[in-house]
Amino acid sequence: MKTRKLKLGFPKGSLQESTIELFRKAGIRINPSSRSYFPSTDDEELDIMMVRSQEMAKYVEDGVFDCGLTGFDWICESGANVKEVCELLYAKSGFRPVRWVLAVPNDSKIRSIKDLRGKRVATELVNYVKKYFARKKVKAEIEFSWGATEAKAPALVDAIVELTETGSSLRANNLRIVEDVLVSTTRLITNSRAWKDSWKREKIENLAILLKGALAAEGMVGLKMNVKEANLKKIEQILPALKKPTISRLDLKGWVALEVIIEEQTVKRIIPALKRAGAEGIIEYPLNKVIY
Amino acid sequence: MKTRKLKLGFPKGSLQESTIELFRKAGIRINPSSRSYFPSTDDEELDIMMVRSQEMAKYVEDGVFDCGLTGFDWICESGANVKEVCELLYAKSGFRPVRWVLAVPNDSKIRSIKDLRGKRVATELVNYVKKYFARKKVKAEIEFSWGATEAKAPALVDAIVELTETGSSLRANNLRIVEDVLVSTTRLITNSRAWKDSWKREKIENLAILLKGALAAEGMVGLKMNVKEANLKKIEQILPALKKPTISRLDLKGWVALEVIIEEQTVKRIIPALKRAGAEGIIEYPLNKVIY
Amino acid sequence: MKTRKLKLGFPKGSLQESTIELFRKAGIRINPSSRSYFPSTDDEELDIMMVRSQEMAKYVEDGVFDCGLTGFDWICESGANVKEVCELLYAKSGFRPVRWVLAVPNDSKIRSIKDLRGKRVATELVNYVKKYFARKKVKAEIEFSWGATEAKAPALVDAIVELTETGSSLRANNLRIVEDVLVSTTRLITNSRAWKDSWKREKIENLAILLKGALAAEGMVGLKMNVKEANLKKIEQILPALKKPTISRLDLKGWVALEVIIEEQTVKRIIPALKRAGAEGIIEYPLNKVIY
Amino acid sequence: MKTRKLKLGFPKGSLQESTIELFRKAGIRINPSSRSYFPSTDDEELDIMMVRSQEMAKYVEDGVFDCGLTGFDWICESGANVKEVCELLYAKSGFRPVRWVLAVPNDSKIRSIKDLRGKRVATELVNYVKKYFARKKVKAEIEFSWGATEAKAPALVDAIVELTETGSSLRANNLRIVEDVLVSTTRLITNSRAWKDSWKREKIENLAILLKGALAAEGMVGLKMNVKEANLKKIEQILPALKKPTISRLDLKGWVALEVIIEEQTVKRIIPALKRAGAEGIIEYPLNKVIY
Amino acid sequence: MKTRKLKLGFPKGSLQESTIELFRKAGIRINPSSRSYFPSTDDEELDIMMVRSQEMAKYVEDGVFDCGLTGFDWICESGANVKEVCELLYAKSGFRPVRWVLAVPNDSKIRSIKDLRGKRVATELVNYVKKYFARKKVKAEIEFSWGATEAKAPALVDAIVELTETGSSLRANNLRIVEDVLVSTTRLITNSRAWKDSWKREKIENLAILLKGALAAEGMVGLKMNVKEANLKKIEQILPALKKPTISRLDLKGWVALEVIIEEQTVKRIIPALKRAGAEGIIEYPLNKVIY
Amino acid sequence: MKTRKLKLGFPKGSLQESTIELFRKAGIRINPSSRSYFPSTDDEELDIMMVRSQEMAKYVEDGVFDCGLTGFDWICESGANVKEVCELLYAKSGFRPVRWVLAVPNDSKIRSIKDLRGKRVATELVNYVKKYFARKKVKAEIEFSWGATEAKAPALVDAIVELTETGSSLRANNLRIVEDVLVSTTRLITNSRAWKDSWKREKIENLAILLKGALAAEGMVGLKMNVKEANLKKIEQILPALKKPTISRLDLKGWVALEVIIEEQTVKRIIPALKRAGAEGIIEYPLNKVIY
Repeated sequence: MKTRKLKLGFPKGSLQESTIELFRKAGIRINPSSRSYFPSTDDEELDIMMVRSQEMAKYVEDGVFDCGLTGFDWICESGANVKEVCELLYAKSGFRPVRWVLAVPNDSKIRSIKDLRGKRVATELVNYVKKYFARKKVKAEIEFSWGATEAKAPALVDAIVELTETGSSLRANNLRIVEDVLVSTTRLITNSRAWKDSWKREKIENLAILLKGALAAEGMVGLKMNVKEANLKKIEQILPALKKPTISRLDLKGWVALEVIIEEQTVKRIIPALKRAGAEGIIEYPLNKVIY
Repeated sequence: MKTRKLKLGFPKGSLQESTIELFRKAGIRINPSSRSYFPSTDDEELDIMMVRSQEMAKYVEDGVFDCGLTGFDWICESGANVKEVCELLYAKSGFRPVRWVLAVPNDSKIRSIKDLRGKRVATELVNYVKKYFARKKVKAEIEFSWGATEAKAPALVDAIVELTETGSSLRANNLRIVEDVLVSTTRLITNSRAWKDSWKREKIENLAILLKGALAAEGMVGLKMNVKEANLKKIEQILPALKKPTISRLDLKGWVALEVIIEEQTVKRIIPALKRAGAEGIIEYPLNKVIY
Repeated sequence: MKTRKLKLGFPKGSLQESTIELFRKAGIRINPSSRSYFPSTDDEELDIMMVRSQEMAKYVEDGVFDCGLTGFDWICESGANVKEVCELLYAKSGFRPVRWVLAVPNDSKIRSIKDLRGKRVATELVNYVKKYFARKKVKAEIEFSWGATEAKAPALVDAIVELTETGSSLRANNLRIVEDVLVSTTRLITNSRAWKDSWKREKIENLAILLKGALAAEGMVGLKMNVKEANLKKIEQILPALKKPTISRLDLKGWVALEVIIEEQTVKRIIPALKRAGAEGIIEYPLNKVIY
Repeated sequence: MKTRKLKLGFPKGSLQESTIELFRKAGIRINPSSRSYFPSTDDEELDIMMVRSQEMAKYVEDGVFDCGLTGFDWICESGANVKEVCELLYAKSGFRPVRWVLAVPNDSKIRSIKDLRGKRVATELVNYVKKYFARKKVKAEIEFSWGATEAKAPALVDAIVELTETGSSLRANNLRIVEDVLVSTTRLITNSRAWKDSWKREKIENLAILLKGALAAEGMVGLKMNVKEANLKKIEQILPALKKPTISRLDLKGWVALEVIIEEQTVKRIIPALKRAGAEGIIEYPLNKVIY
Repeated sequence: MKTRKLKLGFPKGSLQESTIELFRKAGIRINPSSRSYFPSTDDEELDIMMVRSQEMAKYVEDGVFDCGLTGFDWICESGANVKEVCELLYAKSGFRPVRWVLAVPNDSKIRSIKDLRGKRVATELVNYVKKYFARKKVKAEIEFSWGATEAKAPALVDAIVELTETGSSLRANNLRIVEDVLVSTTRLITNSRAWKDSWKREKIENLAILLKGALAAEGMVGLKMNVKEANLKKIEQILPALKKPTISRLDLKGWVALEVIIEEQTVKRIIPALKRAGAEGIIEYPLNKVIY
Repeated sequence: MKTRKLKLGFPKGSLQESTIELFRKAGIRINPSSRSYFPSTDDEELDIMMVRSQEMAKYVEDGVFDCGLTGFDWICESGANVKEVCELLYAKSGFRPVRWVLAVPNDSKIRSIKDLRGKRVATELVNYVKKYFARKKVKAEIEFSWGATEAKAPALVDAIVELTETGSSLRANNLRIVEDVLVSTTRLITNSRAWKDSWKREKIENLAILLKGALAAEGMVGLKMNVKEANLKKIEQILPALKKPTISRLDLKGWVALEVIIEEQTVKRIIPALKRAGAEGIIEYPLNKVIY
């Protein structure tokens, strides 16, 4: 019997490397060759093609792909009618939220979007920004920019709408943020036809479980420790409320082994507290995936 | 008195490195900082801004820049009304001609542009290609492509119009060339206002002299040799007809020194012939610039 | 008392880096200095010398080394009488099987080894190939090749016998495979004298345990999860039959903790199934070694 | 309420990279920007400034910093009055002990420090070495060296006191060690004012717990295995006496699960022994931190 | 007869690479091995040792070296009595002047050196700065800094005296320049004993000729062109007055060949002017050395 | 008319890079692609194949190639009957002579080749070394070595015959040279059939002229200067006797221009002398080729 295939659109460009790495952590190896847009994979049920994030939503809507990964910004820009399966979000990697902001030169007199009436604005997100200005009832000339947008004000336009992460590119170009226009994260999207096919839907859901499991493990670690039963309550109060620890009996009378998964950034607070509360033989170990 | 300034548009992206190098050879140092679109230069009469090749012609037409460097392809695509000062062309570097070709999958039935009636064609050069198809009287759906165009046929479109240098990217994507659509080289362009300003015009012409002089020297070398007067005619017949050698008298009776600039690629043929014809003490030396 | 030493032959060349890495995973650090053929190690009972894979078997047979690592191909080529302790095999690394194939130019008329009667064949594995042709009763001229063998047909010989992994080098040289000649993997070998010495034998067996344990862990991960006793059977049916999970009681009534080691490539199928079957708090963690 | 801050002096220079890596393992991310001496961190209670190891002790003594990391050598050299919180020591990394040695040219007649009476000695550790010679009752001229000290004997001085790790730099400069002058390791230091502030003291102790926990895990691994109760005693005798294993009951009658943390360098000896003693399903897994 | 040797002190550290490169251009190859402070050279009359710039002047004064290269700043700091042979200066390389400046935090109230009465100042150039303040009759506490000086104000001191080239490190640390303290360039220095030895003196003068010749060629190029005698005067007026061109007669009646060495940075102005004035066959060629 | 082709064997391996570079300097560009053994070139009359130096002579003898580049050592080893066209020799690059030496462990009792009677010797140059020992009337066992030969004594053999350049690899392996066995340089070789074909012979001779011309220029520079006629004799005595300078009359009365090509390593001596003898405006310029 022939293997069924799920057609997956893979984002080429800035998201590519971190998405390949995320799939690898999820257990799916994707081997991009430098030239080919059709990377091979060890998941025989996937048929992968790389396209630009900008074009993804349209191709998923058309059914060229059963599902795809792209940013919320380009989903909006395309105006495509797609279904969002899940959001992929992790603060410390390629999957952190990005902001599109309206910015003007530091010494510009423009203080709010209202001041842009009749002015020129350059952006790569031209459709979305036109709708945004319309919604705000501000008539302005919104121009498409091929790139290097942050250098265009004030030489060429009065304001820009541009992507920013840390704001350092804006600062370097002497720009000041007027307001946030859109906050965007990566999404796994599908179309209604694929979603109605039960095999495809299960496959897409499996992908979502694995990708979210891999992302969830990014900032988490496992802790194990031995605890006197007398101290157990005190210890449990130190641990985050939401994540119930696994407790197992030891051969040593009066002692239990306690195991818990916690966020790595809380470790620096929790471990010293556990030690003070009497936990012994505390070890921290790394995780590949966490699925609640 | 304040220095007058010529506003020069500099191509950001694929041409950037080779253009900076060409200016350096022309005697003008341009220091791009990683972030800034306004590189500094040791030519105090230049005011440089970097923009995409795609947007250059429009900004020169508008007078934002007095002159700029960009490809003939993007001049056509923009439809801007600009004056071409000179062509910058050199076979072995970033200044070699590039071709935009109409290509289809190897196993496609399409043999000529006529067969594309009613089909879909993806390209980044969407305006030019629309006009090109109209001229050829072929009605087809010409779509804008954000990139990765060569991977789109046949999965997404029937044909593409894409840039090619060696054809290796087309081959790697199993595409076959149907016809050439446009051959493009780099041009120095200006607008009529700047051209009428005598200071600006002279400055632009100086730029053209220096850039062409640096490009001309790329593939050329100097040859010097000592020749018996008796052999002079024979020697001169070996040398390329167009480039008259400089002959100067030596203190050694009956001998002259001969100096000539030739194309490096002819050296492998000419030097052995010169030696056989009696030239002595032949030396070849490198050049920075050649201005005829 | 002086430490006894096991003389270990270490393969210099293409296997070197992956073998050093395998030893590191096995818990034995080997520090090659760029010049020396006698790397230092933190295992005081090892005396290591690096030699070419081609020469290893002969030196193990002679007793210069007590044991060594080399390919099955070079063991055959050398004709040495050695004892194989274990095979080191892992699909995704330097320890995957390699094939020696008989290949001819794509447009050659040769279809089977029989067609090579009276023809010239170049190979680095000249002794083995001579025996192979003799066994097949085909008389041909088998020539030793110093390298670059895949470029030699048809310019210099009619066929070659050459190593291939992906076949891409053959394709790039327009060669077609006629038949497989030998499939080879890495082996740990010893000689009968060392094997009869009980200290050496135990040391060699320990090496085999650690190296196999490290290789076994390469493609494996640990899974832990909490399971309701009612779901236990269902969960166990999802897991690979061969690897019995470890089940331990939790303090939470009606729940058990289940832990199992599985192959990483099955994770993408198993984790979603486990989640659907009611497993909670599934975590996947990395392993250094697995010894069954 | 405003976050309280602990002022931490961070060693700039040779220790910098390994200290940042150690903090990362301890759960505290420090982001040095190339220019700034004030790196940011995800621990909001820390206020970090980078200074040279040589100047650290003085600034901790003055209270400019509440605590800092530096070498014992520079604490001695500075003569500052500081309190040592803990020693950071790990044999295989940037935290291994370093030695300052008195060295002379290979062919020098100097055999002991006594022979240096009236001679010239160059060193960067000039205050400490002066005291050291005074203690040894040897009058010599101790000169400050700006660096490249190992090249100075015999051209410029009779002996040097210089840092050495492997001795290879001394050998390369044809120097012979006369005696050890100081063995130094990295220390976490504080001053009495900070130590009396209970919030600061707890914060400093927490840092010490996390840093020591991360260092302790460097050379350690976790082992898990299934053992028949009948073999338990035999197995426990193989394991290091100090680290009591955690034993938990399995659902499989007559079997227990045993888990223990051991030093990685003992693994090559212990795992084969465990297997021979009947342990099954042995796995080794990596650790991030170990806090006893 | 044995070769006489000149003992040359070579600056280790920031000047090292550009000095080795300068010597190479001067025709003297120096091969630093990574470890040795005694680099080999193809000039058999040189005996080279590398020492820090800071220590150079003292060793030249003592006669340990016959001559050496170091900065004027460290000559002043050392207070050594040495003779300066020549200054090595080139605007675009490692041999450009460096400035030591007195700097304070941007928001400091200090406006002039007078405001530093009773304040603390950190610097690596501690002796020179003490004298400088004494000369200005300002009593302040001048402290030695081991480095990272620009980060010390205002956390640790009120002002610093520090090296700056572009000012970017000062800006990045929010410092403001109060005044220049010292401008320094590289010098070739000797002592009176060596200078009185005629062999050594000639050797040192030869070094000076070659090093200055190589530096002079750095920013210069050669121009050759053919000129009608009628245009000669006009052409000569375009060329820099100081550098008289070499004119030689050609076989072509009425024409001469003109050759001149000019500064590369003037080329962009001169070449277009020459072409307009009727020069033909202008070529520009690179130079290794220029000795007037 | 079809272009005639010269079949050229190009050395793959250690000589490859420097040979490609030498051809480039000779004016012939060779573009090796990473996989192909048939590099393309801009000389349409060349048909190039890459083979190992070891196999070159045999293929030239057989007429597979018309000419080829390889070492004298491998010509000897092969025993092939080939004609040497020229030697390619340059002291400072890949074309310097290499030595094959007979070496033994430092502490071996072997002092001369006579002491090797009945001993074992490993070498890659097995045929040549057998003949060499026969000529010296020493019977020894000469074994073929696959590489890493310098590590084999004393563990595996009594002596080795191995390539050495600086002797540092021998020293690192504690070996001592007993005697030189062969000094080898690169040669351009051909066979008698190609040499009798007048087109091929001229093409091969042209190659030799260009390659030697490029090598000759490696260590040479051009000098130009203006000299008073009165000083001419004095100046000429400073210049190397063999290379007669070119003297041309200047327009400036009583002055001549003098131009000469000299070895770069003599520049450091000659330039200061010229300046002292009254030469003015001395410039040194680089050369690409020198053909006497």
